[in-house]
Amino acid sequence: MDTESLLERRYRVLGRNSPLFYDKPLHLVRGEGVWLYDADGRRYLDAYNNVPHVGHCHPRVVAALSGQAATLNIHTRYLDEHVVAYAERLTGLFDAQLSMAMFVCSGSEANELALRIARDCSGGEGIISTAWAYHGNTAAVMQISSLFTPASKRGPHVRSVPVMDPYRDRAGRSDEELALVYADDVKRAIDSFAASGVRFAGLLFCTAFSSEGLPTLPAGFMGKTLDHVHAAGGYFIADEVQAGFGRLGSHMWGHQKLGVVPDIVTMGKPMGNGHPLAGLVARRELVNAFTSRNMYFNTFGGNPVSAAVGMAVLDVIEDEQLLQNAVTVGEYTLARLEELANRHTLIGDVRGAGLFFAVELVLDRHAKTPATAQTKRLVNLMRDRGVLISRIGMHDNILKIRPPMPFSKQNADLLVDTLNQALAAL
Amino acid sequence: MDTESLLERRYRVLGRNSPLFYDKPLHLVRGEGVWLYDADGRRYLDAYNNVPHVGHCHPRVVAALSGQAATLNIHTRYLDEHVVAYAERLTGLFDAQLSMAMFVCSGSEANELALRIARDCSGGEGIISTAWAYHGNTAAVMQISSLFTPASKRGPHVRSVPVMDPYRDRAGRSDEELALVYADDVKRAIDSFAASGVRFAGLLFCTAFSSEGLPTLPAGFMGKTLDHVHAAGGYFIADEVQAGFGRLGSHMWGHQKLGVVPDIVTMGKPMGNGHPLAGLVARRELVNAFTSRNMYFNTFGGNPVSAAVGMAVLDVIEDEQLLQNAVTVGEYTLARLEELANRHTLIGDVRGAGLFFAVELVLDRHAKTPATAQTKRLVNLMRDRGVLISRIGMHDNILKIRPPMPFSKQNADLLVDTLNQALAAL
Repeated sequence: MDTESLLERRYRVLGRNSPLFYDKPLHLVRGEGVWLYDADGRRYLDAYNNVPHVGHCHPRVVAALSGQAATLNIHTRYLDEHVVAYAERLTGLFDAQLSMAMFVCSGSEANELALRIARDCSGGEGIISTAWAYHGNTAAVMQISSLFTPASKRGPHVRSVPVMDPYRDRAGRSDEELALVYADDVKRAIDSFAASGVRFAGLLFCTAFSSEGLPTLPAGFMGKTLDHVHAAGGYFIADEVQAGFGRLGSHMWGHQKLGVVPDIVTMGKPMGNGHPLAGLVARRELVNAFTSRNMYFNTFGGNPVSAAVGMAVLDVIEDEQLLQNAVTVGEYTLARLEELANRHTLIGDVRGAGLFFAVELVLDRHAKTPATAQTKRLVNLMRDRGVLISRIGMHDNILKIRPPMPFSKQNADLLVDTLNQALAAL
Repeated sequence: MDTESLLERRYRVLGRNSPLFYDKPLHLVRGEGVWLYDADGRRYLDAYNNVPHVGHCHPRVVAALSGQAATLNIHTRYLDEHVVAYAERLTGLFDAQLSMAMFVCSGSEANELALRIARDCSGGEGIISTAWAYHGNTAAVMQISSLFTPASKRGPHVRSVPVMDPYRDRAGRSDEELALVYADDVKRAIDSFAASGVRFAGLLFCTAFSSEGLPTLPAGFMGKTLDHVHAAGGYFIADEVQAGFGRLGSHMWGHQKLGVVPDIVTMGKPMGNGHPLAGLVARRELVNAFTSRNMYFNTFGGNPVSAAVGMAVLDVIEDEQLLQNAVTVGEYTLARLEELANRHTLIGDVRGAGLFFAVELVLDRHAKTPATAQTKRLVNLMRDRGVLISRIGMHDNILKIRPPMPFSKQNADLLVDTLNQALAAL
């Protein structure tokens, strides 16, 4: 099947608006570790996908999936050891207060459920998210996903706080001063709910602010923010779909890096290494209160196959020391990207943590004018040269680099060397 | 792990409100075909679960899952043959007008998306469902799921039409007269939206009215209903999560049995035989219009593994002639259940189609007083005797019997003979 005919066939049944990466879509047939192979047998370094968290088609995950699928796959209305053991293992990775788990199939469903719990338990409706966020595709979650939903369509129960952007907005201020600015933004949104008679339910954000551009966060901003949220009777929902499972290297969860304990934590993409597994952990009293008032059942959520897959992912993270790898290779990659910034003035800023990097491109380092067109072109040039990355941010001028976790220093060299060539070829 | 300790461990991490079947929860360890095995090695005939549609752990489905998971599992932002081939095969099973597909992970996500499309394309918000329906667990879908959401919490954009119940409400009327009553109910709900200034978006129901009690539908009711829906500028969303994939035997889809072509059809549970695969097919113009105005992407939806699994399920349905089996064994089972009704006055009505049966229990055949307590007890007695069924309906007095599709006449005999004994032991 040649790629052009496949594209035409796809347009017919899925439509032309079903999103595809790159000017020349990539026709993939195989994946292994950090590598993807196209229909012509060409190999691509995957420096973008976080769904295959422990590596494409990891044999231990595939074995867990296949073995359990051949043995028993049933829902949680029957007793099954796998989901219980997985819930114990998972909650064991969080602060003791986050002691209960609920399982669903996607990050969207996890955030849906978190919103339902926060609204039910607070008795309020008002949710705060950031001004360039994406948290999923259901109606309620789209309302708080400001990236794709204009303010006019978010409804009266949603407020947005400005995107944190210390690279542009520092203006000589200290971390402490910046932290106060961000906490004040949240306080202002809470006050605005009160002023319009909307009861506050909670604050939801991605703990790495991934879609927002992966800003380097000022220490301590979250402590003050959390005080405001709790004082107003709301809950803090930490979206760990992107930052979680050790992506940031130093900690298993983004909120741990921020030094706070959320009320609810949602998880998705990397959780099942591609298998549709997602979920949340939350304070015991929230889960019990919500489920005592609302029948919640998710047919596929927490089935034995998903639980076995989730457990295998945790085994691999631990046995292959992937957090340690993220720290070591992450620091190495960051240093090499910073070297590159010395050679290419287009690079305005390099930042990141663990195996999650943002390279912000600007036309002018002083004015910081976003190099939007160049960023798009660069992503395509990288694809043509066999390295897969993408872009993010309010100005679409930030390279998003977020490889599978078994990324090595050699992989980092290939990434940075190819980026060097692509920048030269721009 | 003994069952009691497992239950205690489950309560700690999942809570006491996470629903479990039966007074004595069943601790399962293995499934095969129509059989489930508990931790003590005891075998149960599964006459309830429709998720393992082609049989528990069907080897062809497991092989497709394992093979593809070991080869490539990626999202639809890259080109991949599996999702395209599956979308072509799936849409080929519908009327030519339903020519496009969108894939998600659960029936909830499918109904969420269908509501978003109907609301976006109609420009309205008003949705009609039936008064005892369940369509999923997200906020928007819960609003129309009257089974768990009281009228006071459904909001101004939802109307319910009464449950069809010809067993109780026929009152000497002909099918034609009844059909008119139901179509008029929908018309009245549409008018009520108009009267309160809510623009109508659509009608959504399960094409077998499963949660409502699997009523024997009067011929032709849907034609008139559809005229009302379209005349008011709304869309008909057929929820095929329970009735679809040949469950009713005579047709692949419940709406085909009703003799109409919906605007959107949602699918879930049986689609991936337990793998979290769901989706919708819809009229081309609806999908194109919606996606031109709304970025829709579902990370796990339509991944190569899900597509390969979905394809294997369709292969098995076809190769093992499961629709024909549903017709043959279904008729046999229905006849045997009717015989049972001659022996037990508790059975007020026996109805169904294909491999989906409702046995309605009443204290008095004339007054039709629901035998609610007896129904609950009977379901537990059946479990103790090794046959798994459940119950449905507004009065919780209807046995719900809906086995995996490879159900045989011998399985039907065991089901009916056990039911006979359990009724005698009540």
